[in-house]
Amino acid sequence: MFEAAELEHEVSKEDYRKEEAELRRALLAAQRELGQQRRFPVLILIAGVEGAGKSETVHLLNEWLDPRFIEVSGFGLPTEEEAVHPPMWRFWRALPPKGRIGIFFGAWQTVPILERVLGKLGPGGFATRMEEIMRLERMLAQEGVLLLKYWFHLSKAQQKKRIKSLEKDKETSWKVTRYDRTLFEHYDDFIEVCEPYLRETSTGEAPWTVVPAANERFRALFVGRHLLGALRARLDAPAPAAVKATPAPPAAPEQVNIIRALTLKQEMSRDDYDKELAEAQGRLARATRHKRYGSISVIAVFEGNDAAGKGGAVRRLGAALDPRAYRIVPVAAPTEEERAQPYLWRFWRHVPRPGRLTIFDRSWYGRVLVERVEGFAAEPDWRRAYAEINDFEEQLVTNGAVVAKFWLAISKDEQHRRFKDREATAFKRHKITEEDWRNREKWDAYEAAVCEMVERTSTGMAPWTLVEADNKLHARVKVIRTLAEMVEDGLKRAK
Amino acid sequence: MFEAAELEHEVSKEDYRKEEAELRRALLAAQRELGQQRRFPVLILIAGVEGAGKSETVHLLNEWLDPRFIEVSGFGLPTEEEAVHPPMWRFWRALPPKGRIGIFFGAWQTVPILERVLGKLGPGGFATRMEEIMRLERMLAQEGVLLLKYWFHLSKAQQKKRIKSLEKDKETSWKVTRYDRTLFEHYDDFIEVCEPYLRETSTGEAPWTVVPAANERFRALFVGRHLLGALRARLDAPAPAAVKATPAPPAAPEQVNIIRALTLKQEMSRDDYDKELAEAQGRLARATRHKRYGSISVIAVFEGNDAAGKGGAVRRLGAALDPRAYRIVPVAAPTEEERAQPYLWRFWRHVPRPGRLTIFDRSWYGRVLVERVEGFAAEPDWRRAYAEINDFEEQLVTNGAVVAKFWLAISKDEQHRRFKDREATAFKRHKITEEDWRNREKWDAYEAAVCEMVERTSTGMAPWTLVEADNKLHARVKVIRTLAEMVEDGLKRAK
Repeated sequence: MFEAAELEHEVSKEDYRKEEAELRRALLAAQRELGQQRRFPVLILIAGVEGAGKSETVHLLNEWLDPRFIEVSGFGLPTEEEAVHPPMWRFWRALPPKGRIGIFFGAWQTVPILERVLGKLGPGGFATRMEEIMRLERMLAQEGVLLLKYWFHLSKAQQKKRIKSLEKDKETSWKVTRYDRTLFEHYDDFIEVCEPYLRETSTGEAPWTVVPAANERFRALFVGRHLLGALRARLDAPAPAAVKATPAPPAAPEQVNIIRALTLKQEMSRDDYDKELAEAQGRLARATRHKRYGSISVIAVFEGNDAAGKGGAVRRLGAALDPRAYRIVPVAAPTEEERAQPYLWRFWRHVPRPGRLTIFDRSWYGRVLVERVEGFAAEPDWRRAYAEINDFEEQLVTNGAVVAKFWLAISKDEQHRRFKDREATAFKRHKITEEDWRNREKWDAYEAAVCEMVERTSTGMAPWTLVEADNKLHARVKVIRTLAEMVEDGLKRAK
Repeated sequence: MFEAAELEHEVSKEDYRKEEAELRRALLAAQRELGQQRRFPVLILIAGVEGAGKSETVHLLNEWLDPRFIEVSGFGLPTEEEAVHPPMWRFWRALPPKGRIGIFFGAWQTVPILERVLGKLGPGGFATRMEEIMRLERMLAQEGVLLLKYWFHLSKAQQKKRIKSLEKDKETSWKVTRYDRTLFEHYDDFIEVCEPYLRETSTGEAPWTVVPAANERFRALFVGRHLLGALRARLDAPAPAAVKATPAPPAAPEQVNIIRALTLKQEMSRDDYDKELAEAQGRLARATRHKRYGSISVIAVFEGNDAAGKGGAVRRLGAALDPRAYRIVPVAAPTEEERAQPYLWRFWRHVPRPGRLTIFDRSWYGRVLVERVEGFAAEPDWRRAYAEINDFEEQLVTNGAVVAKFWLAISKDEQHRRFKDREATAFKRHKITEEDWRNREKWDAYEAAVCEMVERTSTGMAPWTLVEADNKLHARVKVIRTLAEMVEDGLKRAK
């Protein structure tokens, strides 16, 4: 696949100057439009062989475009902060918001490719990493990121010539490091790993563009033209039609409706509650003070029907914890900065360090619940969310997190009773709004969405716990006891 | 000052239950109003002697209030990420936004007090830290943060009794750590340091409230009532009047007008420019590749008249740098998340790590320039900003940053010429707006603001460089050369 890129090209100085002036003007105009529309972000990945002018190209883009709205990120060895989070965390942090351009100099493929070349990663491990990368790139593309992946290529002979000429010139010899020379010696091994990598990760949504890099002027115009074309195509495309509400999904058939299969009203006396709650809280308190607790993190997700008692359960849970070591993230409407990013970005920013516990009061599941039912997300978007969410949670668990997900279920009658009670009690009245009553009318649609959510996202590593919540006392004990058990299991795995 | 706090108090169970129910309702209502108004954040500092019920109180607040809108932060030893930034950075990151409550469990005073007790910090060093803290607290209060500082106190006898009773009970004995026992042994030393600390940092804006902590019920009601009173007082205060435009300040008298003293038109031939620019860029490139560069950070601030050529200078500066190792922060209108925080918050979040360079294209000086002249900030607010800015920059420099500030100055005639040129050139037209012409009408007011800004904020550690910019070539060379020199100096200091 590199044959075309190894052809020799010439561009005269004069031709270059003429085209560059025009290109620059057009690129600047496109960048301005990008910033005004704020419809999508642009993410440019710069990769390829050493000595192929990657740095020079990034400099050039900064010169051609308005550098204030470009953010260049280099990804070398992770810092301590980065190292304690899942590997993709640092890339999420650096994503450009809508209307801006991000350049990743080296990206998610850099470390796996290097490790594969050096033999630290076998073919199976490499394939797994490649899969992860493809899922991420697909998700970004589907979230509207204009993802442009440039691979700067030189043949072995071209690379050799380039390094020689850099070394000869006193002004540029510092650019050739010992590391470059080592890589040059591994040229064949490197290409042997990269060639299939490029082939397999050149997907429909995010193909690689191989840049013939031997001639500086040709390379510059090549990248400039390609970038301009890609920008224009997206800028000129009509704005996507507004999302139409998805027709209410049919309720799950009775025999596989896992919610209707629950016995929502569970008995528990006040005395048993006091005893069992204290016991469960004690277990959780001990687990979170365990000496190995510092090497795992805990993520507790709370979803449930309106008025199912999430707040009360969270409060009893918090009472068992050191208040410094946990935080509650209430998930409501996203902020301006969050709206300018892919959907999962606002959850990634709250992923805890080891030794910390984060409670999400509502979560990323909003996409397949309220956003689905109310039509805030288009069907293809919430459909793909199941896989994206599983992928997200897998990354958390692989990095040592315990992910506990609770669905607090109450019956329609019980909800009605609680709504009425809230309306009748002065200090609870703020908890009940018109919207709650409206949501209630879509009870069946919500129930169907919950069934499908549990079906698709209850995984071995991050299972859903369905909590019968008509009796609050039972629900609280079940939540805390389950979490305690899961943390204990997590501690065993961390051994 | 602890006498009153050492008195013994009793509250019967029944009295407690009665008052608690009412207090709880009122606190919840106040918290809800806080969230609806979103006018100010609440920051609660929890400090005091060991065993005085600090944890218990935080638990209680989480129980009384809606814990989803409370964020508790504990500040132990800094992480690597925190350690490479100025000491106050981690506190800035954890500040609650408007409408929410933040609880700092241990805060900026914890480390200095501990170090003073252990003798690692002398009286002079301690006084300096105390000064820094008072400046920060005053700034937060003036930015509208409701800052509540609770000091939980026990007499030596009370503390002894408390520890004994914790140790006796199997359920609570784990709460007494070896650390607690050490602190108990140092009770007198601790009080000897804390007493004057509390006295001196009990300022009008942010006084300490000493909590008599021996009796659990009394302590709970004491804190609850105080918190409620403080919340209500702020919630019920009328919204501050809208800022009125500050009357245009008089221009600085000719003889001390440092801008008019400049010779704005400096000669430089194109040939000299090419040579000197390359030389300055080379110096900067070498300095930022120096082996000690990894232990300093660089912050370059660009301010100047409209059309003074900031963009062009920034571009040439960037050309000398590794694009991965610098970023440009264009400062425009703050985002929603930024508007919910104290003024300097949005700059703190961009403070670079060692080995990195950040260019601010416009900066925190907006407060004493555009916000002052256009009346976006009230006079007392921009007046206090000089000291706050000096304090901010001092923290950066103390932490090893080079802070270079450039004012690019052009004459009124030159600006007129450039505005006209922009209007006449197709691809520059977007750079000139009605607003630019309007700002120009306030030329004298801006000039006076610039003179005062330089006068008050050009410090030994972070001096202003005034750049004569009628000739762009001269300006670019001066900027890059100056920055190169400052980085070289920084490297020497870092030795």
